[in-house]
Amino acid sequence: MKAKIYVTLKRTVLDPQGQTIQRALASMGHPEIAEVRQGKFFEVELGEGVAVEAARTLLDQVAQDVLANPVIEDYRVELVD
Amino acid sequence: MKAKIYVTLKRTVLDPQGQTIQRALASMGHPEIAEVRQGKFFEVELGEGVAVEAARTLLDQVAQDVLANPVIEDYRVELVD
Repeated sequence: MKAKIYVTLKRTVLDPQGQTIQRALASMGHPEIAEVRQGKFFEVELGEGVAVEAARTLLDQVAQDVLANPVIEDYRVELVD
Repeated sequence: MKAKIYVTLKRTVLDPQGQTIQRALASMGHPEIAEVRQGKFFEVELGEGVAVEAARTLLDQVAQDVLANPVIEDYRVELVD
């Protein structure tokens, strides 16, 4: 089973990296790009025989404990197949 | 209009960061996670009045030229609304 985990900064948290990309793009002739925010994502492959519900619980826990910092980041888990 | 751009390492390229995460998770009691690959993603907000086709062309170009390294990375552009 595969899954994708998306980690983004919360809307209320400043994203200087995204701002830098936006300014760089503006200076390169793309002023129509008003805002850029950068996130991470993880493609996870689970071993055989993990049930869907167990996978969801496991990945939720992994995202919360390891992959994201819940103080400043949101995450979303998406089971693929 | 909003868009999301996903950048991933090509399948043939080693991902030591993902491997490190996978090993860390295994040592933390999650051996059922067989593989982790890390990517980046960008949430882009376009200014008013950019047509859908123009947006697609623009973001494709930006992804190819700036956000991704086409030698080792793939990208995917997704217009949200």
